Amino acid sequence: MATTDKASPRDRLLDAAAELFYHDGVSIGVEALCRTAGVSKRSMYQLFDSKDEVLAASLERRAPGYAARLIPGPDDAGTPRERILYVFEQAERASTEPAYMGCPFLAALVELKDPDHPASVVARTAKESLQEAFRAQAELGGAQDPALLARQLMLVFDGASARAGTKVETLDDGLTTRTVTVLLDAAGMR
Amino acid sequence: MATTDKASPRDRLLDAAAELFYHDGVSIGVEALCRTAGVSKRSMYQLFDSKDEVLAASLERRAPGYAARLIPGPDDAGTPRERILYVFEQAERASTEPAYMGCPFLAALVELKDPDHPASVVARTAKESLQEAFRAQAELGGAQDPALLARQLMLVFDGASARAGTKVETLDDGLTTRTVTVLLDAAGMR
Repeated sequence: MATTDKASPRDRLLDAAAELFYHDGVSIGVEALCRTAGVSKRSMYQLFDSKDEVLAASLERRAPGYAARLIPGPDDAGTPRERILYVFEQAERASTEPAYMGCPFLAALVELKDPDHPASVVARTAKESLQEAFRAQAELGGAQDPALLARQLMLVFDGASARAGTKVETLDDGLTTRTVTVLLDAAGMR
Repeated sequence: MATTDKASPRDRLLDAAAELFYHDGVSIGVEALCRTAGVSKRSMYQLFDSKDEVLAASLERRAPGYAARLIPGPDDAGTPRERILYVFEQAERASTEPAYMGCPFLAALVELKDPDHPASVVARTAKESLQEAFRAQAELGGAQDPALLARQLMLVFDGASARAGTKVETLDDGLTTRTVTVLLDAAGMR
């Protein structure tokens, strides 16, 4: 509301969920979630059917900003090849931030271990949307098999996300852009 | 012991831990663990300091079998290129099994979100040992930059593991072997 500078209970819950689930994992309890959000459990259950729904909604709200950060807009300049590489440059940049723990959607999928969980459905949609952005650019760039190239790029993207997010790898020497360049060349991408 | 066909409480705990943590995640509680193992909590705490130590020990016990399944033995035939591809062929094969949920070590790292957790340390060692196997074969095969190629192969391996393990991708059309072939060619591997 315009008369208050305080976020709504719903927004506070989704902010707390995004933060807690990303840093501590999806097994964080309702108590901790409500405490961090400054919202009573009663209020939470008035807004959401379950913690699972809070998690799903928090990932859903995060998706557009995540995509906007990674994927160049339709009016941004660049060849299809440059637009694909941009995604990996952005991921490499993000991986150096102290709070980085990899792709939140991939992490949720790995942790939930249930493709039918409402948050898994949201996470899968976010991953599919990145894959489709790759495929569209691969097609524009004349790749021999755009769908295959998009799947290969997702392997690299998610492998890098999981490995850098868990601190077994670092990306800031251009590991992914170098790897992706090889795949783009082999696919005949302009 | 030879006089009984029953596994020891320690083995039962480690078997139950490997199974439960892989299928349900690392947040499984001590109650469920002990119930599945048929071991009292008291016995568990006589054998292990904490659930974290059970998890670490279960991953540690799983590592040699996991490596033996993926990595060809020193006496197995094959060029360095074939030996690298073998790892991915095995992973593609494993991914079609109903119980497949990706690499257990990667999943533990993603779920634990703490590089210093005793089970993360074990998991990281397992990942490093696969990476070193790749690097050694890359060197034998004359790759231009064996260390870089090994890191690239790990991106593909872990990306495939996370994606196929969470059912957002399928590998049985040879996705990883095709991708790896591109990387091996570009690295000048024999």
